[in-house]
Amino acid sequence: MKLVRVLAMGLLLALGARTSAQVDPLPSWNDGAARQAILAFVKETTDVARPRFVPPAERIATFDQDGTLWVSHPMYTQVMFCLERVPAVVKAKPELAQVEPFRTVLRFLGGDRAAIAKLHQKDLLKVAAATLTGVSVEDFQADVKRWLETARDPRWKRPYTELTYLPMPEVLKYLRASGYKTFIVTGGGQDFVRVYSEETYGIPPEQVVGSALGTRYGYAKDGKPFLTREPKLLLDDNDAGKPEGIHLVIGRRPRAAFGNSTGDRQMLEHTQAGEGARLSMLVLHDDARREYAYGPAQGLPGTKVGAFPQEL
Amino acid sequence: MKLVRVLAMGLLLALGARTSAQVDPLPSWNDGAARQAILAFVKETTDVARPRFVPPAERIATFDQDGTLWVSHPMYTQVMFCLERVPAVVKAKPELAQVEPFRTVLRFLGGDRAAIAKLHQKDLLKVAAATLTGVSVEDFQADVKRWLETARDPRWKRPYTELTYLPMPEVLKYLRASGYKTFIVTGGGQDFVRVYSEETYGIPPEQVVGSALGTRYGYAKDGKPFLTREPKLLLDDNDAGKPEGIHLVIGRRPRAAFGNSTGDRQMLEHTQAGEGARLSMLVLHDDARREYAYGPAQGLPGTKVGAFPQEL
Repeated sequence: MKLVRVLAMGLLLALGARTSAQVDPLPSWNDGAARQAILAFVKETTDVARPRFVPPAERIATFDQDGTLWVSHPMYTQVMFCLERVPAVVKAKPELAQVEPFRTVLRFLGGDRAAIAKLHQKDLLKVAAATLTGVSVEDFQADVKRWLETARDPRWKRPYTELTYLPMPEVLKYLRASGYKTFIVTGGGQDFVRVYSEETYGIPPEQVVGSALGTRYGYAKDGKPFLTREPKLLLDDNDAGKPEGIHLVIGRRPRAAFGNSTGDRQMLEHTQAGEGARLSMLVLHDDARREYAYGPAQGLPGTKVGAFPQEL
Repeated sequence: MKLVRVLAMGLLLALGARTSAQVDPLPSWNDGAARQAILAFVKETTDVARPRFVPPAERIATFDQDGTLWVSHPMYTQVMFCLERVPAVVKAKPELAQVEPFRTVLRFLGGDRAAIAKLHQKDLLKVAAATLTGVSVEDFQADVKRWLETARDPRWKRPYTELTYLPMPEVLKYLRASGYKTFIVTGGGQDFVRVYSEETYGIPPEQVVGSALGTRYGYAKDGKPFLTREPKLLLDDNDAGKPEGIHLVIGRRPRAAFGNSTGDRQMLEHTQAGEGARLSMLVLHDDARREYAYGPAQGLPGTKVGAFPQEL
């Protein structure tokens, strides 16, 4: 299948004897350079007799999420979550209904799809602050869970957690079966992704690195302690923030990294700069029928949502 | 043995049938309430037929390090590391030899043990900034590794990594054998502890939460990217910072937590505040002969290095 096309930037070793007599670990992949690079990398790093063998403890693989593991067009799923939480925020504070950017968001949700174009980054940050902070971490988790159960992607009419790219869970599983610990390293919210990462990707919360708000420890009236989500960005897990976040949460350099846009460049560089066998891969979106096509690499349309320029 | 005395604050269930016909998982522990609480907790949470069974994925146990897993008196090991790095810092910048607090540190290292009393928290922070920041994360790791190989505790004349409390690795192993994922949650430096956590405690770097500096991603002259340790405290993993750090790095509430001082109180509260079976334990240091005795709980001498007051 050609749902995603993967470019191997890492080692592209010719496979000697193909081991595909057994069950194919990557059945959805075309038998091209990308697939072969993954198989070769695993063979090279898990066979103790080979010079570039990697001890199991050091087998760390990191995956961007939006645009790499699941669909991120036309809008990041977490942005949809923020927008769709606005009515609840306005219900609690009715005066916001007449205040921008909330007024425009309500028009968008009411069916005026074009209204969204009026919102700039600054507006979205206001919506994010109003919808993502000031609640306890447990209430937030419950909100995300409830939303994911009912929200549907407007084009595909399916839950967002079903919009993963078939070939990618195959790589996750294959790497795990080969002793790799798989991590998500996302520019999206760490606490948002952690709600569904285990069920959707088989990746536990403690293996999700993402943009993270600070929290504040305090006590309820009954003396019970709880953590509140603060409007303070502790980690901006995009661009240079990705290797920084990897160092903060994982503390080891990945052996393999997968991304799809400029925001992943530094994570891939960081991975590739280590010694020994390394694998860095990029998903390029070129299938408008089964997904969305964007680049601007290879003459595909440009985008503000996860651009893949030619130089990448 | 009575090297450490452990108070069980968590569930203290009377054990029905003792399962110690097999190999004793906690051979160094007196058969008191603390030992029984651990065994009961594990039995209660790992037997699928019991009402408070905990699924394997949720089995998270967190351990403070200094004073809980290894000796922290008379001075935290990482403070010794900082002090002993001062000569190298002064060698690179000779003018510092005449500047406080470096001058006092050099006198202390020269044999004037009393000089150290003149240093206040503020001075130690200056020493920490000079010795812990401005280097690449990999150079820092190499420095810590080298230091640990040669440094010796002045009283015990042994490497610091050998000064662990025998009963505690037994609990770590026992919990891991029972499906628990063990984490260190330390007020000490995350990057410092990660250097030896795997070898010393069987805990991989990605399961160490600690006080963390920000890092900055940049490029060397040859274009190779690297991360520099910045003089910016991203996470102060003490007191309320412990549950906040646990949320940031682990993203789940622990089922069991072990500490020894006021700095661990919030971690234990946070653990205990969750639903179902929880275990919170404290190490009290009452053996001056084989270690150090301090409280001030139970009439033991007070200390500035990990106090355990009676109310804790």
